[in-house]
Amino acid sequence: MPLGQRAGDKSESRYCGVETEFNDDMPHVLAFNLSHGSFDFVLAPLMDPAYRPSLMQKDNGVSGVLPFAGSDLVLSPSQWSGHVVGKVSSWIDLDSEDDILRCDSETTLKQEIAWASHLSLQACLLPAPKGKSCANYARCVNQLLQGLSSTQLWLRLPLVKSDSETMDVNTDTSDDSWEIWNSFRLLCEHHSQLSVALDVLSSLPSVNSLGRWFGESVRAAIFSTDCFLTNARGYPCLSKRHQNLVHGLFNHSMQIVLSGEPVHSLPKINSHIASNDNDNNVDGVQKHPLRPYLDYVGYLYQRMDPLLEQERLEIGYRDYLQSPLQPLMDNLEAQTYETFEKDTMKYIQVLMVVGAGRGPLVRASLQAAEETGCKLKVYAVEKNPNAVVTLHSLVKLEGWENIVSIISCDMRYWDAPEKADILVSELLGSFGDNELSPECLDGAQRLLKDDGISIPSSYTSFIQPVTASKLYNDVKSHKDIAHFETAYVVKLHNIARLAPPQPVFTFDHPNRSTDKSNNRYTKLQFGITSDTGSAMIHGFAGYFDATLYKEVHLGIEPSTSTPNMFSWFPIFFPLRTPITLSPGASLEVHFWRCCCPTKVWYEWCVASPASSPIHNSNGRSYWVGL
Amino acid sequence: MPLGQRAGDKSESRYCGVETEFNDDMPHVLAFNLSHGSFDFVLAPLMDPAYRPSLMQKDNGVSGVLPFAGSDLVLSPSQWSGHVVGKVSSWIDLDSEDDILRCDSETTLKQEIAWASHLSLQACLLPAPKGKSCANYARCVNQLLQGLSSTQLWLRLPLVKSDSETMDVNTDTSDDSWEIWNSFRLLCEHHSQLSVALDVLSSLPSVNSLGRWFGESVRAAIFSTDCFLTNARGYPCLSKRHQNLVHGLFNHSMQIVLSGEPVHSLPKINSHIASNDNDNNVDGVQKHPLRPYLDYVGYLYQRMDPLLEQERLEIGYRDYLQSPLQPLMDNLEAQTYETFEKDTMKYIQVLMVVGAGRGPLVRASLQAAEETGCKLKVYAVEKNPNAVVTLHSLVKLEGWENIVSIISCDMRYWDAPEKADILVSELLGSFGDNELSPECLDGAQRLLKDDGISIPSSYTSFIQPVTASKLYNDVKSHKDIAHFETAYVVKLHNIARLAPPQPVFTFDHPNRSTDKSNNRYTKLQFGITSDTGSAMIHGFAGYFDATLYKEVHLGIEPSTSTPNMFSWFPIFFPLRTPITLSPGASLEVHFWRCCCPTKVWYEWCVASPASSPIHNSNGRSYWVGL
Repeated sequence: MPLGQRAGDKSESRYCGVETEFNDDMPHVLAFNLSHGSFDFVLAPLMDPAYRPSLMQKDNGVSGVLPFAGSDLVLSPSQWSGHVVGKVSSWIDLDSEDDILRCDSETTLKQEIAWASHLSLQACLLPAPKGKSCANYARCVNQLLQGLSSTQLWLRLPLVKSDSETMDVNTDTSDDSWEIWNSFRLLCEHHSQLSVALDVLSSLPSVNSLGRWFGESVRAAIFSTDCFLTNARGYPCLSKRHQNLVHGLFNHSMQIVLSGEPVHSLPKINSHIASNDNDNNVDGVQKHPLRPYLDYVGYLYQRMDPLLEQERLEIGYRDYLQSPLQPLMDNLEAQTYETFEKDTMKYIQVLMVVGAGRGPLVRASLQAAEETGCKLKVYAVEKNPNAVVTLHSLVKLEGWENIVSIISCDMRYWDAPEKADILVSELLGSFGDNELSPECLDGAQRLLKDDGISIPSSYTSFIQPVTASKLYNDVKSHKDIAHFETAYVVKLHNIARLAPPQPVFTFDHPNRSTDKSNNRYTKLQFGITSDTGSAMIHGFAGYFDATLYKEVHLGIEPSTSTPNMFSWFPIFFPLRTPITLSPGASLEVHFWRCCCPTKVWYEWCVASPASSPIHNSNGRSYWVGL
Repeated sequence: MPLGQRAGDKSESRYCGVETEFNDDMPHVLAFNLSHGSFDFVLAPLMDPAYRPSLMQKDNGVSGVLPFAGSDLVLSPSQWSGHVVGKVSSWIDLDSEDDILRCDSETTLKQEIAWASHLSLQACLLPAPKGKSCANYARCVNQLLQGLSSTQLWLRLPLVKSDSETMDVNTDTSDDSWEIWNSFRLLCEHHSQLSVALDVLSSLPSVNSLGRWFGESVRAAIFSTDCFLTNARGYPCLSKRHQNLVHGLFNHSMQIVLSGEPVHSLPKINSHIASNDNDNNVDGVQKHPLRPYLDYVGYLYQRMDPLLEQERLEIGYRDYLQSPLQPLMDNLEAQTYETFEKDTMKYIQVLMVVGAGRGPLVRASLQAAEETGCKLKVYAVEKNPNAVVTLHSLVKLEGWENIVSIISCDMRYWDAPEKADILVSELLGSFGDNELSPECLDGAQRLLKDDGISIPSSYTSFIQPVTASKLYNDVKSHKDIAHFETAYVVKLHNIARLAPPQPVFTFDHPNRSTDKSNNRYTKLQFGITSDTGSAMIHGFAGYFDATLYKEVHLGIEPSTSTPNMFSWFPIFFPLRTPITLSPGASLEVHFWRCCCPTKVWYEWCVASPASSPIHNSNGRSYWVGL
């Protein structure tokens, strides 16, 4: 049964599994671990570990039936698919120098995956590669992936990374299981059915290095009983760092699997271990030897804060790529209101809302004027004729006819009867200028008095390199270049942020400089901290921060973001080919904002450690029309 | 006029150009350099070097006509396109920190390329990047390339590479112009209209480092007069190393351009330099100041050996990718004949030609038998019924009815009346086993006596990593993955061989081992010599070497290849994404030969320094049917 109830959480993390030994009585395995043990699924070997194809062939007398753990008839299809993750024989070594072992391994792997596929298992656990070299293993898995309908393959890897900061990057002495994963998945072309199951050990690598895994497709974390400490009452518990890891796993839909023999001697438990597993009925209560560990994991799950209202609303958008041309700009009111409150506005008389839309800024302006006792004349300029209809009825409804004039016109072309003291707009996109606020406000600037002000008065875009294998695979699934040269609005969640964000482009309003061009070009250097280890860049997360007026700002750049604001999700700029970085490497990135009379677009590239293609040349894939 | 006549050579190398200064009298420039100077084309600036867009804009009084070197009317279209390579202003610096210079540079570059395109010039020379950073230059060129119909862009680069072998690979102190080229073309996605023009200096980098350029799209080499030495008679000449380079350029269709002031004081020439260029008519003979240099280059051209008959036949196939399924197996006769001569064959009585085709091996066998006085009984086994018709008429024509029995059957299934002393076949492909010789001969092995022999008795395939930008672009032009996962038969020419070939798969016949599988797996390590510098791998050249009988072998592996044999071109295995190697890097490559009941295929990948995808998984793109 699930670990507990957590409001709004419908993720896989609620389910906890247990690793079992080979047992050809699968109904018993399920009964013991699920019904009696309260686990949700078992990680069970599919084949007798003594089986070797090369020995079978010499023994011609056998019936040819492979020694699988139970036929498909011993469990119902839903039991197989819902409660069993198949464990591929752990002795296999496809990169062995021993030809017979290598061939036996390949044969066995193919037989077991074919069997798992026949049983419609949701997933199979592949044993960890035996050495650093895994090309033949990857070749065989890659062949199997091409023909696999829905079964996922989880590559088991120990969660290790040696911490020697002084390690020579030229010698291949690094002990970082992420690098093995990276080779394996590159060889398998980032196949979406290939994931990771991490073996959590008693010592953990650095936080930066752990963080990389949250950008990867990790499905399960296998906690050996050795990982657990003992609390004052003799019960198993986890170190603070392990607890933080579990918390991260729960927040990223990763499942926990318990493994190993119980190592905590609780009085009641001891008797169960001594007794026969098949008849574990003591005091009328069924007790599983790993139950105290499961109880502790359940406790950690239940102890988590419930999802915030905002998180529950956003959960469906996590890592879901959205068209970048959908403006998400309906929540500026409160902030703008605050701006007005903070300022006295005593000299303000004429205010223009440019891009008035359905009127929220008109309302906020009038409200602020009333609170500050300021007399105001408002022009609401809106080019969308449909929105203008709404504005008219709003004005009528509120009785603002004497204060508000509605102008059905593009702000860039309106011939105004007088100049404004203040221009208010909410034209910002997730990346600041990406919805053409600069071009619109430049066009409206002639409406402003020489000493007039613009709200916002400036805005800056930011980017940071991220690992985001889920997003990469979503973009790749379109099988064209255009989708790799498009920026997406997305609630980033299952990602690893590899370096702090850096500013990209800044625009000031009104623009008093002599250079009126809105073309921009910025070159950035990101240093990846060396304790992160090697890392892969799938693209860039983009944000903005805007100065509304004086020191009041609003934005989504993580270090300064406005709390409780969910009008803007970040933007994501993909890379056509992900780039692997060595530990401590420096990443050189170039971003351009290009304009022509009909459109505005971005181009971007990586120039170091290796050059990528320049993305979106001439705005061929993604642009915003003027 | 061309440098001279060389039988069979129709390449661009016959034409020699000259670099000129800005001159708005283009008809004079052409008359002076071509008609009077005997050059074939000029490398001429397109725009007055004093022009700066930012200065023009302030000077509003001008007519708006850009200061180009002559309108399109001053020369005929064929003169512009046939004899002028446009030189883009050399002052431009698109990666300058100075915003004005950078913007001026971009504007000028766009104006000049648009002008060159309007004139339908064949090519434009882009000045060398001013520093190591070239991302903005590449972004702008890349934008222009997207809209360029046919004009080629030649990026000018000095032919330099610092020779410090002990250089720390981690510090970016390398002075290797190939690396700038590599960044530039990666940023521009290997665009096929982007090429290189090398500035040859008086000192040359190492031979290995020079070799890289022969795998690249180099169109021209600009020789400054400073490169030339002076011979005993006071005339310009080149060092032996420079001569070798010129020879290489001529052999790779690269054009030579002469540049600079004359630095050799020949008595006659001196008077010309002193006189006015416009009236250079002395002694009734028009003399160009660089004429002695051109004459020397012409001398080097004419001194080259004429193309061999074989080269002339093959020239049309150079770097032309062919379907790998076309067997090229019609020239084994001479070699096989030689084999028979070398051996006494006194005990041979029954000989089977398996895969007799149109009969060349039948004829060779009988000829050898006659010369050695051996009595022979021949079975000609052929599964192609059309070839069988030809065989029948051959046997009748030659009167071989009593000696040769024609068997219209697949060798794998023929029920023979007796066993053979010798099996002769010619089933090898460019990569040895790639036309399924192993499977055919395994199937025919039961036709052979226990002590019988097979000709060939074994064969081995070889690969070596190569730079091959032309082949890469040809494969890429198909815009699909399948073409990148196919091996091609190709007369490799415009390539750089980055390491010696290494053996991949070996097959022995008859196969006496207990393991009858024709699956193979080989892992290879290639070391790139560090004086090569950085290098790019576009794929692998593949060859074979076969032992026909005892020490007689036949093959195309370059170090041991059989001379004057052109039945087999090499094979080329592409990489989907080219891999850049650091100086002295090691390359780990995996090759698999996979078999299933219906087909045979190869899979391949690079595992180090970075993992590529595994190519051709399950033979999805390229396979040979059984």
